[in-house]
Parts: sequence; structure tokens; C-alpha cells
Amino acid sequence: MKHSATVQTQFLSVEEVRTIVSHLGVAQTLHRMADYIRADYVRWPDFDKCARVASHSKDGVIELMPIADASTYAFKYVNGHPRNHLVSLPTVMAFGVLAEVDTGIPLLLSELTLTTALRTAAMSAVAARVLARRNSKSMALIGNGAQSEFQALAFHHLLGIEEIRLFDIDRAATEKLVRNLGHTALRLVRCENTAAAVRGSDIVTTVTADKTNATILTPDMIEPGMHINGVGGDCPGKTELHPDVLRGATVFVQYEPQTRIEGDLQQLPTDFAVTELWQVLRHQAPGRTSEHQVTLFDSVGFALEDYSALRFMRDAAGELGLGQSVSLIPELADPKDLFSLIRPGIGALALAA
Amino acid sequence: MKHSATVQTQFLSVEEVRTIVSHLGVAQTLHRMADYIRADYVRWPDFDKCARVASHSKDGVIELMPIADASTYAFKYVNGHPRNHLVSLPTVMAFGVLAEVDTGIPLLLSELTLTTALRTAAMSAVAARVLARRNSKSMALIGNGAQSEFQALAFHHLLGIEEIRLFDIDRAATEKLVRNLGHTALRLVRCENTAAAVRGSDIVTTVTADKTNATILTPDMIEPGMHINGVGGDCPGKTELHPDVLRGATVFVQYEPQTRIEGDLQQLPTDFAVTELWQVLRHQAPGRTSEHQVTLFDSVGFALEDYSALRFMRDAAGELGLGQSVSLIPELADPKDLFSLIRPGIGALALAA
Repeated sequence: MKHSATVQTQFLSVEEVRTIVSHLGVAQTLHRMADYIRADYVRWPDFDKCARVASHSKDGVIELMPIADASTYAFKYVNGHPRNHLVSLPTVMAFGVLAEVDTGIPLLLSELTLTTALRTAAMSAVAARVLARRNSKSMALIGNGAQSEFQALAFHHLLGIEEIRLFDIDRAATEKLVRNLGHTALRLVRCENTAAAVRGSDIVTTVTADKTNATILTPDMIEPGMHINGVGGDCPGKTELHPDVLRGATVFVQYEPQTRIEGDLQQLPTDFAVTELWQVLRHQAPGRTSEHQVTLFDSVGFALEDYSALRFMRDAAGELGLGQSVSLIPELADPKDLFSLIRPGIGALALAA
Repeated sequence: MKHSATVQTQFLSVEEVRTIVSHLGVAQTLHRMADYIRADYVRWPDFDKCARVASHSKDGVIELMPIADASTYAFKYVNGHPRNHLVSLPTVMAFGVLAEVDTGIPLLLSELTLTTALRTAAMSAVAARVLARRNSKSMALIGNGAQSEFQALAFHHLLGIEEIRLFDIDRAATEKLVRNLGHTALRLVRCENTAAAVRGSDIVTTVTADKTNATILTPDMIEPGMHINGVGGDCPGKTELHPDVLRGATVFVQYEPQTRIEGDLQQLPTDFAVTELWQVLRHQAPGRTSEHQVTLFDSVGFALEDYSALRFMRDAAGELGLGQSVSLIPELADPKDLFSLIRPGIGALALAA
């Protein structure tokens, strides 16, 4: 344990995370975040894990996602409100904290809305690197909303994807993506529907937002050797894949107890076999075993990625000398004398201490 | 729903909460916080409740405590590390958030270390007002640490307690309490041991910190008509009362599923009968029914009190014009265009928006 009575929580606002990303560039940010995620998944048994705690309401969900190893505790607050765009708010908003296990001090408070989009894309790439065919060059991207550019760039920079085949029921979303990524080396192909986008693609990423049991992908669309990166089905009652798409694939998950509740996996019996990704990353289970196999990563967003993302942002902020300090926790001369904070007549004096 | 694309989270630091308390005074703060807690307990069925989510480590615990009604979501982060005083840190540190259920926006981020001590004391008083004998004048206070002055003042101001009988194994803690409350109308009596403090008291409050199965109160100390306010036994393996003290009393709890895990109740079989306090406050169950009955509030700290405390602090800050604004959530011209935050070349422009 290394600390004094000084309790300062480092704060990374949206502006500071933007500065980090613009300083490093998106490619390096995604590369490094993927390295942090991979490094943490490889030491999976070190973590105290639980399914996230969800509070569901009519229009959305608010979740808390805690995780800890022996030295560091992390949690994320995140919502999912698919109708938020109607009031000009993001569907997903998040922030999170790193804390010291030995004392409980919150060390870092950070925005995680932007960071979550980056870490979700990095997580998808970490999975695809061991699950997709090695020579993958094209990816269908179904759902061109807030997360989509991040997915496109992660697969571009971390897997060498050259062509992205786009479809969204909201044509304006696709045009926004094309505007945002038009300057990159990616070949962007607008498609008329999901089937046209998927046809001939090496990888299929679904990242749609509706809180319904949708059927974005049906078995007739799936071709041998495809890797499916299912990102949008991540909540009870919110799925994207026909159950036979899962039955026809080898299915990989982050944390099985959570994915059974939240993933597209929720549609299948509880004895349907899946493999946790950490086992593949530690070479304890096979990933892809043939060119013809269909692989499926049923991504739901697990607390460990946020732990990794918070670690990365803290380190990157340190390198760049970024970050403010916030007074979340009182500093006390005598830790048993909390009352000293409000003892009449001591106000100004203690405030200056 | 009433909001714009402006996403600003109000922040109440330790300094601002101190200012609120010093402005209102401790008595009014406790009175008003008790009113908020009572008002929320009376509408208990409106809340979506769960036991808090705890991450235990060798020296302590870190917990997340979420709760929501149809309009407002709240959670608290709180640790409990009894050895923290060895490194000059508080045993308990906390912060929390109020969020809008309709959209997931975090509306308020506030310190809760000081606030938790106030709300725990206010909660104890809310319970004691329906459970202690009406003419109670004296209280034993076993454990004179960080929470103790708040308990003493809550019982003084909200129940009319005139004499506090003090004991702590750490004599310096007792002297600190006497220094802090020497200026009040309370009669403070230092006692040689727990039994001497308890003898003849109308109310007995235990608020000790050790994370062990301690036996602070034994059945021989308990007298007919006493009300026991058991605050310190609030974690698996952390208890204060001999199990026969519970067996000899009528036991009241906040939220039964959580208290069975965390309270002194953890020592008794799961069929040992208890009453949830909200039922008494709603007149759906009796509180104290005779002058000779021994009543026991097995307090563990439930998320609803923090919901109430955050509501109160938000309102009080509003009345006094206090609070800063923090950028936890990005503001987006197009909510589907999260990528616009990091689109190359747009940095400075968007930052100014």
C-alpha cells in the first residue's frame, strides 16, 4: 500500500479523452486499447466477476458493471435508451471509476461514452483476430449508428479489413458514416439491404440499437467461413440474430453467465455449448479450426473491457500530463474525526487545510 | 421528458456539502434528511430494489448500491475498510449519482462520505421515532468513531435524547467525541465499559467498525423497554450483537433480503421473523407495542436512504445556488454521430461548440 492522507480523484472529462485520442490517433488508440484488453483477458482467473446489475424501465436500461482483481476495482455506469436520439441524446452514455482494492479510494473518474465505443470496437477486433479467417478483407456493417465508425476502424487497423459494406434502415446514418470515414483508406460500399451487404463478406458485424427481438441476420445469409461479430444484441429482449444463425455457428462469448441473460444466446436453451473467449486467448480452447467454419462472437460488453479501457486511459493521460483533480472524498487530519468537517466554527479553517 | 441536448452533470464536492450543512446547521440538515427518508420509505412499493453488490477483499469491501423508482435512478459507491485509519484514511468513503430513468442522463454526482454519516444517523432516528419508548432521554453510544457524533446529534435533535453514555475501546475516540460535542446541550458521560454505558439507558446504539464477529452486546446487558439501534454490524462476518440479543427482541430491518446477508440477522436461521420498517411507517405493521418490549433496528444501510440523501442534497444545493457542472457526458449535434468527437481536423471547433 502506497498512499498518504491525501485523497484526490483524477478526473478525465470528455474533453480530455478527446485530447488523448486526437493526440495518439484513432489507430494507435485502438491498437493500445486492444493490447490492454487482451492482456487482461489472458489473466481472466485473477478477476472477481459478476453479471452486470441492470435496472430496466419502459424506454431503456441503466446498468452498473463492477469487476476487481487483487489490486484494482473498476465499475462502469452505462445506460441504453434506443429512443434517446428523439431528444437529441446518445443512446448509450457512460462513465466509470478505478479504485484501490486495499483502501477503497476512488483513483480515477472518467467519461466512458466515447471510451466505450472505442473499447467495444477493440474488443470485437481482439475476438476477430482469433476467430475470423486470416485473409479477411471485407466486412458487412449492419447498423451505421454511433458505434459503427469505431467498429469499421478497429477492423481496418487491427485486422486489415479494406472494404466495408454498409446498411442501415436509416439512410442518413449510412451517409454520416461515409462522411466520417471518407478520408480513410477504407472502401465504403452502400448496400440496398442486409442480405446485399452480407453477401460475399468475410466478416459480418451487426450493431443495431432497437430494444426488440429483431432478426437482422437469417440463416440463408450466412456463408461458409464467415465470422459474425454480433454487437447489438446485448440486453434481455434485445436480439439481432435468428436463433438458427447461432445453431449453425461455433459461438464464443465473454462471460457465459452474463451472455446467457443478455446476448443473442438468450434465445437458445441453457445447454447450448459456447466457449468463453479467454480460453481461446490463453490457448486452452480452439478458436477457428477450419476455413469453412462459421464463427460467432456474441458480444454483450463485459466489465473487464471497461477495466482495461480505464487502465489505458489513466496511463495515456499520465503520459500526456492530462487530468484534473476532483474532491470526491474528504481529507481528514484524524480519519476517525469525520465530524470535524462540520464542527461549528471550524469551517473556513478546515476548508483551507 | 424535459431536456435538451445539453448534458451537464451537477457536481457537489465535499466542500459544497460542507457548505450546505454549515448553512442549514446540523439540526436542520438532520431533520430535513429524515423527512426525505421517511417520505421515500412511505412509498416503498414504488421502488425497484436489490441487495447491494459487494466486492470483498482481504481488508475490506467495495459496494455498489442501486435503486430506482419510475423517474429517478440512484446509486452509491461505498467502501468499508476498518484498517484504513492506520493509513490516515476514513474507514468509509462514498460518492453517488442521481440519474433520469427516461434517458439515463446522470443529473447529479455528489460526495457521499459526509452525507452517508448524516443519512445513517437520520435513518436511525426515523426508525427510533416509531420503535423507542416515547419518553426516551438517555442513549448508550458504543463505538465513538467517525459516525458517532452524527448518531448522537440525530437522537438529540430528532428524539429529544439529553444524555449520551459513551464507550469505545479507543479512549482517544471518546475524547474526540467529547471535544466535538462539548458545546452542545447534550450531557456526555464517559463510561468504563459497554455494560456500564448500557445500564439504565433508554436506547443503545452500537456503531463499531471491526470486520469481525464481535459480541458488543450480550443478553445480560439488555433491560426491558430498551431500543437497540445496531448500526455497525453491516457486512458478512461483521456483527456486533450476541444472537440471543436478537432472539430476545422484536427485530426491524430495512430490506429483509439484504439484512439477512449483512445484518446481525446473518447469525440467525432464515425463518427468524423480522418486520421491514416501511410497513411500520405505513401503519401496515405494529412498531413498539408495549413499554417492556425490547425493540431492535438491525441497520445495514440500504440504497433507498442514499436516494433520499441525494435528493435532499440536490434540493438544498438548488436553494443555496451551489454546485458546479462537470462534463461527464458528451454533447452531440447529432446523437448518432459520436464519431464527430474524434473526427480528425474537427477537434478545436467541436470543443468550442
